[in-house]
Amino acid sequence: MGKKKGNLVVGQSGGPTAVINNSLVGVIHEAFRYEEIGDIYGMLHGISGVLNEELIDLRRESPDTLETLRDTPASALGTVRYKVTDEDYERLLQVFQAYDVRYFFYIGGNDSMDTTHKIHTLPSQKGYELHAIGVPKTVDNDLAETDHCPGFGSAANFVAAAVRNTGFDTEAMGSSGPIKLTEIMGRNAGWLTAAAALAKDKPEDPPHLLYVPEHGISLEQFVDDVRQWYRRLGYCVVAVSEGLKNEKGEEFGIAAGGRVEVDAFGHVRKGGVIEFLSEVLKESLGVTIRSDKPGYLQRSFGELMSRVDREEAYMVGRAAVRAAMAGESDKKVTLVRLPGPEYEVQTGLAPLIKVANIERKLPSEFLNKRGNGVTDAFLEYARPLIGGPLIRYARLEKHPVPKRSIK
Amino acid sequence: MGKKKGNLVVGQSGGPTAVINNSLVGVIHEAFRYEEIGDIYGMLHGISGVLNEELIDLRRESPDTLETLRDTPASALGTVRYKVTDEDYERLLQVFQAYDVRYFFYIGGNDSMDTTHKIHTLPSQKGYELHAIGVPKTVDNDLAETDHCPGFGSAANFVAAAVRNTGFDTEAMGSSGPIKLTEIMGRNAGWLTAAAALAKDKPEDPPHLLYVPEHGISLEQFVDDVRQWYRRLGYCVVAVSEGLKNEKGEEFGIAAGGRVEVDAFGHVRKGGVIEFLSEVLKESLGVTIRSDKPGYLQRSFGELMSRVDREEAYMVGRAAVRAAMAGESDKKVTLVRLPGPEYEVQTGLAPLIKVANIERKLPSEFLNKRGNGVTDAFLEYARPLIGGPLIRYARLEKHPVPKRSIK
Repeated sequence: MGKKKGNLVVGQSGGPTAVINNSLVGVIHEAFRYEEIGDIYGMLHGISGVLNEELIDLRRESPDTLETLRDTPASALGTVRYKVTDEDYERLLQVFQAYDVRYFFYIGGNDSMDTTHKIHTLPSQKGYELHAIGVPKTVDNDLAETDHCPGFGSAANFVAAAVRNTGFDTEAMGSSGPIKLTEIMGRNAGWLTAAAALAKDKPEDPPHLLYVPEHGISLEQFVDDVRQWYRRLGYCVVAVSEGLKNEKGEEFGIAAGGRVEVDAFGHVRKGGVIEFLSEVLKESLGVTIRSDKPGYLQRSFGELMSRVDREEAYMVGRAAVRAAMAGESDKKVTLVRLPGPEYEVQTGLAPLIKVANIERKLPSEFLNKRGNGVTDAFLEYARPLIGGPLIRYARLEKHPVPKRSIK
Repeated sequence: MGKKKGNLVVGQSGGPTAVINNSLVGVIHEAFRYEEIGDIYGMLHGISGVLNEELIDLRRESPDTLETLRDTPASALGTVRYKVTDEDYERLLQVFQAYDVRYFFYIGGNDSMDTTHKIHTLPSQKGYELHAIGVPKTVDNDLAETDHCPGFGSAANFVAAAVRNTGFDTEAMGSSGPIKLTEIMGRNAGWLTAAAALAKDKPEDPPHLLYVPEHGISLEQFVDDVRQWYRRLGYCVVAVSEGLKNEKGEEFGIAAGGRVEVDAFGHVRKGGVIEFLSEVLKESLGVTIRSDKPGYLQRSFGELMSRVDREEAYMVGRAAVRAAMAGESDKKVTLVRLPGPEYEVQTGLAPLIKVANIERKLPSEFLNKRGNGVTDAFLEYARPLIGGPLIRYARLEKHPVPKRSIK
């Protein structure tokens, strides 16, 4: 199928990740290979960059900049959280026509896949040839029709390292601060919190407990779980999803009087769960409770970029351009894990309509029955994504010196 | 001076750091070299391990364990926050006599130096030969009589990386979340918050503002500072010390109704400053305020261990044993920076009485006049300690595409 010569525009949307620039560079590098592609435009701050005609010329970026961007976290084009309106789609088409844009690539999560689907629709109804392809990214790993999402592996690597580090710290503190709660990103999906389990070498290693939004938990069970580990080891490290709910499906933070904020897409922004649970534990156990809220470090920590994630994010960017040049549109690039003993993936395509606005939750076979830990199946799924084992740590063997019983 | 043959005991106290195990291994490795040293005991959980006769035999640890501990954060022996009483010192002497301990090494901060001084005092009054040497550690960098403290460089490296990463994230978010506050450790000293400035390559890079406990700040100035940067760049990243005070010297968190907790040494444990300042900014600027509280990750993040800090922590452990074997006691090992264009340090010794319970604050020449940033002198001081530059990141050059002004 002969392709229409025209210009390309690429944008980044939603929350940044550590590797999202790899997808951008993947699009650019692959675009360099096709004569049909004229200008390569970058939209500043996602779709609002098209609406406001804030476009940059990506062909003028130096090879060194592009190469270094592959190590640079966060969205180099700027990102946006903006819900495109019906009138906007009319205007988008006008802009595409004015700039002769024939290739549209949007690197983003669920909302961006919905936007990309709608961007495909109007031009095709009006007979304007436009190839719109979604490029997946999200640290939440909650996109449908893909084995996993670029962005998740690096965030998972950071979370596993963070929980292991704070776990060693908590173990060392002993009775001076024996309980540690770490709040992990994930409003509705527990993938990233589950990844904290990659910190464990042995069953008694931190994190001892983890709680995800998919499995509501009663305060009684929570306190009981922590108490058991604390009694057994003298300390306890817990990974708590920011979106954790109680057994009735209510947000802990909100139940505790936390305020509710709603973003442009109507998503509730969570908060306060760690503070609430710390209070409950302190009253129940009578010991010092400490906490970490690594917040945006989870999705931006370039130093802990997973090399697998880095490569896959680049790969999906390239695959998106190849798909468009093969005549595809209204599709999202996916990652397909190949069967076999060694971890291997290839890219695929899925219709955007099948993925837009669908949140893929952590399936029940990845969560233990009590809802406070993961299964081996999850560990097998997630371990390759963080790009190699965590660096090796040691504990002393602690051979006791016989007591001389000084009274 | 002929040394009495006897046993050695070493312990770790106070908050762990990423490199404190290097000091432990330094003590052990150096101790291996002396025939006068019999058993090498480790106290579990600091001085309480001596009081409770919970000692381990460090000669039985494998070389691989010791080598791997050099990469392992947090206190491998366990740590403690316990204020030793007068009766305890009597008992400590009894335990030392019963176990024939002649060499005592305590790796810790201000409180531990005070404890070490007192541990020296009673045996020397009673004619029991004991060599007690303090080995400095603290991420707060607030020990007197030393250029800097082992532990600080690695925490500074983490803080600089964290603020740079969250800064790139904030820049990318633009109007969807333009203000970021990151809470940095430091109850009374702003060294670690100041280290966030190492994230900057250019004056307009994050962090745009930083606030330390040494310089109280009015809410008016704070809001005004943030507003100026936000207007200029469209975003603003701020590093805030957990111990920040207002212009009257009051804690923001407490002023905002936060509860006050006091640890075993009577130190107030701070909290709530970020939440309070976020509220104030939100009301004043009317935009989304985001925050990170990396908490204990700052002092435990093994993956971002500074190689300079790692080596120096090992060095002070070895130097402590050498000092004791040279007949010293009641001293602390220090780091002395040598003059010259290349960064170079050697170890020294300072009397414990000169350093115990003295908090070294960030000197005024390291802070700018407005108290919201550091001077070049601070950057020159701190940069070598993080063990090399942060990995290179890039920004797009963003050559604008001429607007075609679609209406």
